[in-house]
Amino acid sequence: MPIYHAPLEDFRFLFHEYLDLEPCRDLPSMAEVTPELIDAVLEEGARLAEQVLQPLNAVGDREGCRWNDGAVTLPTGFQDAWNTYVAGGWPGLTTDPEFGGQGLPGFVGLAFSEMVNSANASFTAYPGLTHAAYEGIHQHGAPEQKQRFLPPMVEGRWCGTMNLTEPHCGTDLGMIRTRAERLDDGRYRISGTKIWITAGEHDLAENIIHLVLARTPDAPAGTRGISLFVVPKFHVDAEGGIGERNGVRCGAIEHKMGQAASATCEMVFDGAIGERIGEENRGLACMFTMMNAARLVTGIQGLGMAAVAHQNAAAFAAERLQGRALTGPRFPDRPADPILVHPDVRRMLLTSRALVEGCRALGLYTGVQLELEQSHADAGQRNRAGHWVALMTPIIKAFFTDVGTEVTNLGLQVHGGAGYVTDTGVEQFVRDVRITQIYEGTNGVQALDLVGRKLVANGGETLKSFFDHARTLLDATPETELAEFTDPFKSALERLQDTSAWIYQQMSRDPNEAGAASSDYLRMFALTALAFVWTGQAAIAWRKLEASQGRTAFYRAKLDTARFFMARILPDTLALDARIRAGAAPIMQPADDSL
Amino acid sequence: MPIYHAPLEDFRFLFHEYLDLEPCRDLPSMAEVTPELIDAVLEEGARLAEQVLQPLNAVGDREGCRWNDGAVTLPTGFQDAWNTYVAGGWPGLTTDPEFGGQGLPGFVGLAFSEMVNSANASFTAYPGLTHAAYEGIHQHGAPEQKQRFLPPMVEGRWCGTMNLTEPHCGTDLGMIRTRAERLDDGRYRISGTKIWITAGEHDLAENIIHLVLARTPDAPAGTRGISLFVVPKFHVDAEGGIGERNGVRCGAIEHKMGQAASATCEMVFDGAIGERIGEENRGLACMFTMMNAARLVTGIQGLGMAAVAHQNAAAFAAERLQGRALTGPRFPDRPADPILVHPDVRRMLLTSRALVEGCRALGLYTGVQLELEQSHADAGQRNRAGHWVALMTPIIKAFFTDVGTEVTNLGLQVHGGAGYVTDTGVEQFVRDVRITQIYEGTNGVQALDLVGRKLVANGGETLKSFFDHARTLLDATPETELAEFTDPFKSALERLQDTSAWIYQQMSRDPNEAGAASSDYLRMFALTALAFVWTGQAAIAWRKLEASQGRTAFYRAKLDTARFFMARILPDTLALDARIRAGAAPIMQPADDSL
Repeated sequence: MPIYHAPLEDFRFLFHEYLDLEPCRDLPSMAEVTPELIDAVLEEGARLAEQVLQPLNAVGDREGCRWNDGAVTLPTGFQDAWNTYVAGGWPGLTTDPEFGGQGLPGFVGLAFSEMVNSANASFTAYPGLTHAAYEGIHQHGAPEQKQRFLPPMVEGRWCGTMNLTEPHCGTDLGMIRTRAERLDDGRYRISGTKIWITAGEHDLAENIIHLVLARTPDAPAGTRGISLFVVPKFHVDAEGGIGERNGVRCGAIEHKMGQAASATCEMVFDGAIGERIGEENRGLACMFTMMNAARLVTGIQGLGMAAVAHQNAAAFAAERLQGRALTGPRFPDRPADPILVHPDVRRMLLTSRALVEGCRALGLYTGVQLELEQSHADAGQRNRAGHWVALMTPIIKAFFTDVGTEVTNLGLQVHGGAGYVTDTGVEQFVRDVRITQIYEGTNGVQALDLVGRKLVANGGETLKSFFDHARTLLDATPETELAEFTDPFKSALERLQDTSAWIYQQMSRDPNEAGAASSDYLRMFALTALAFVWTGQAAIAWRKLEASQGRTAFYRAKLDTARFFMARILPDTLALDARIRAGAAPIMQPADDSL
Repeated sequence: MPIYHAPLEDFRFLFHEYLDLEPCRDLPSMAEVTPELIDAVLEEGARLAEQVLQPLNAVGDREGCRWNDGAVTLPTGFQDAWNTYVAGGWPGLTTDPEFGGQGLPGFVGLAFSEMVNSANASFTAYPGLTHAAYEGIHQHGAPEQKQRFLPPMVEGRWCGTMNLTEPHCGTDLGMIRTRAERLDDGRYRISGTKIWITAGEHDLAENIIHLVLARTPDAPAGTRGISLFVVPKFHVDAEGGIGERNGVRCGAIEHKMGQAASATCEMVFDGAIGERIGEENRGLACMFTMMNAARLVTGIQGLGMAAVAHQNAAAFAAERLQGRALTGPRFPDRPADPILVHPDVRRMLLTSRALVEGCRALGLYTGVQLELEQSHADAGQRNRAGHWVALMTPIIKAFFTDVGTEVTNLGLQVHGGAGYVTDTGVEQFVRDVRITQIYEGTNGVQALDLVGRKLVANGGETLKSFFDHARTLLDATPETELAEFTDPFKSALERLQDTSAWIYQQMSRDPNEAGAASSDYLRMFALTALAFVWTGQAAIAWRKLEASQGRTAFYRAKLDTARFFMARILPDTLALDARIRAGAAPIMQPADDSL
């Protein structure tokens, strides 16, 4: 069975040494936050992840969810785990104190989220979608709606969902057909079928609050005619009390490649009564403000599974005896050397580690910017932070989930044949993580968002924010001893700048150039962003070692991993650059039927 | 449900226009072979694959194999399919006429193998392992053993297996513990436990002939003390008649990520009676001659699943309506454009196609060389062909199976959310193909074989064979209009030559340099080999188009795909080169516990 030990040491390094939390000092969410509090929260979260959630991960995969006449039963132990989760106050970790939340900064929530996803990705569907629905109502609901719906969600008494996709439309939500007819009392009667609704039905909580995209009868066609509705599983009265069943039921659940314990539901709305959230015909805009947060969390989900996969592969490689080191036996008294003596096994483990720790640092760095964007007193600061977040959101969603698939596959490969056997438990990571490259907007859609929107947004200010942070870091890293990190980072940065300009020129001539470059450009950007966080981490580790300050092995490992990243991963940007500059012609010229 | 249409048009192009079969003309296996015969065999094979095997693929995944008290039951329909396979004479397609086979050339068998693997990879376990056991006995058995065992295997009345792995040893077979004690009659009593034995037990055939690696009591330690034995499930008398059950049974079957219908067995040998094949203590050498053929076929298995995945993705992309082309609606009268208008979807499809058709061409090209190596009258010709085969075997095994995982994942991604749902059937390809990167020697082991053995073999003659073929092709491709293919191919060739020399120098200093470079070098070599076959295919297609000879759309597609390969895949060699030249230090320096 897989192991899981939460990366508390790395979190401590990131929160207390790497991240600059100074600009957050006066944020309301930071009012009571001390380094000790962050550590305590993460240690408590680690215990939950390691002791409660992780042991259920294989159970969930084996048993899956069961559908019977509209009811969905979750695997053994999930109800108890949910109760423990709720009793620990985790649904309220980062939510608004006005509705009962603890109001901690979102970046602490991201670290917690990584651990929970490492431990049991399927389980996270239930709190994850609840939080997404909370966000929707919190951002767009009327004060009275917030008062009625949010406190029980923050408490964990009620859950939530997002209902977007229909059989004929996923990415292209303009084609939504679900109808909402206005009743005399101002409420709506909702009818239609939604598919792939994560956590759409289950028996964990007293109620489920569905956020539903639908179309009013006189709405304009396309994306500008979609509104957002709250449709509870059980009616909610004016005081927040629960009434009869509403006209929504789960028609079926999907059998999927992975995430078997996360119920993926077909939801049939048959004249269900709902309330509108936000303005009429502005539903898609409301949904998108939520989806940005959801995209970050989806990226963290990919990272979480990569992290646990790497950890298990490293443990296996240290234990499995097979063959001898190429330079002669390293452990002559044992029947064979552990496989970690082999360069190719080390390559797989170091690739995994460099990607995992790089993504973790970039994710939390972006989490800090998100906190500044959302709550800093100064509009300029909010604005600047917002540029970074806008730019990094598609990168984190797409690249971190690509890393999820890459690293879980590397982890399986390190295990050899044992990795393919279900009982070992590591093939589950490969299957579970695969959906993260698809949901919350496929990674292709993210890439198009990056190149088609973010590259040109705000007269280039959004794009520039990355280069500003990079320049600040380089200015603060003058040590010649750190040139082994700053030099390759600078080169990658220049390459990214040149290529960005080249794409910008090409796409003004032909929009297909943007699409043709998009995925390679996103990866090139992501690797350069990882070079940014690895340079920053290496600089701190090097200075600590120079000053002979504690944790020597930890800092050495940081430096070694940073070196590996620069030498063996960052050069991929060379190929990505060459691919991009081949332009759209090789992609667009072939006839449709020769694809 | 997935579709499958065998790539007969591409096979016809490869066999009748691309491949040079002239040097094979006088081989015994070619005595009755005409282009029409090849077409007829492949058309018949396509029918079997499309109509008999493919419909059972999802059934096999759903039902899996069942173990009960040592007996293994295969999924519904597998017995009938096996009977049809046998009735069609397919087990004897390429086997020796002396034992009842049809003796067709192995490269026709490779094409057939691709189709069967596209249709139903799990099913191929049974004929595939039977063929491997046939090869072992055919190459190393005494004449009397061949007469007794081979005809029923060629007929398909008996099946076969290979028993190598034990719980504590997979790659490192020197640690094998299974014991073989010699009896007075010259036979052996075999005891031990083997794991992960594909097709180890089932009820398809009258008997199962296990080839087993074991150690005699006085054998030297390590790989030089291992012998090869034939252990039939039911005793076989001198006339080939079947007797009582032998002392071998299936103790359990594995639950795996994929290939659910291929029984992966724990085989318990409890004093089973066996006969030695080949010389004592030379068992591993015998096994390796078989494994080279098995490695080619494993590569083809990866290719087969990539091919069917690509085909389904292309069909889905042509049907699924979602969004609009970036340059404005392509089909304004439909509610949305098919997703193949999007550059990033086209990128995924063209990447898949370029890899699939490139691997297909390289695999068959190598199949021709294998035929020359095995049966050409001239020793020099056999020798030269053997160099090519030795060089390409690890490349085909590792790269084609990597392509299998990459392309099945691209295919899933093109499907979006539908790809993740089991019923769509394409996620099965991702799960089924994943083991091919591991079995028959992990891809890391293949890479080490390439760089540690093949790069230096025969004073460089083995390596040189690729450059000789490349030079011959370039000399025969002088047209300036083809420079768009020959130029990038030449550059890649020079890069490969330089990098090979660099690695050769480095590894003489430090063996870890070979290991550190190995996987990236194998991929670099594979991409350059694909540039070789794409240049060759493009040249033929261009000349046919110039001469206005038939199949215009087909040739245009070949040229477009070749262009895409050169522009958007081959540049990866830049990054691989840079990674390799970073050397072993970044991989070997980190402490073991910071991997």
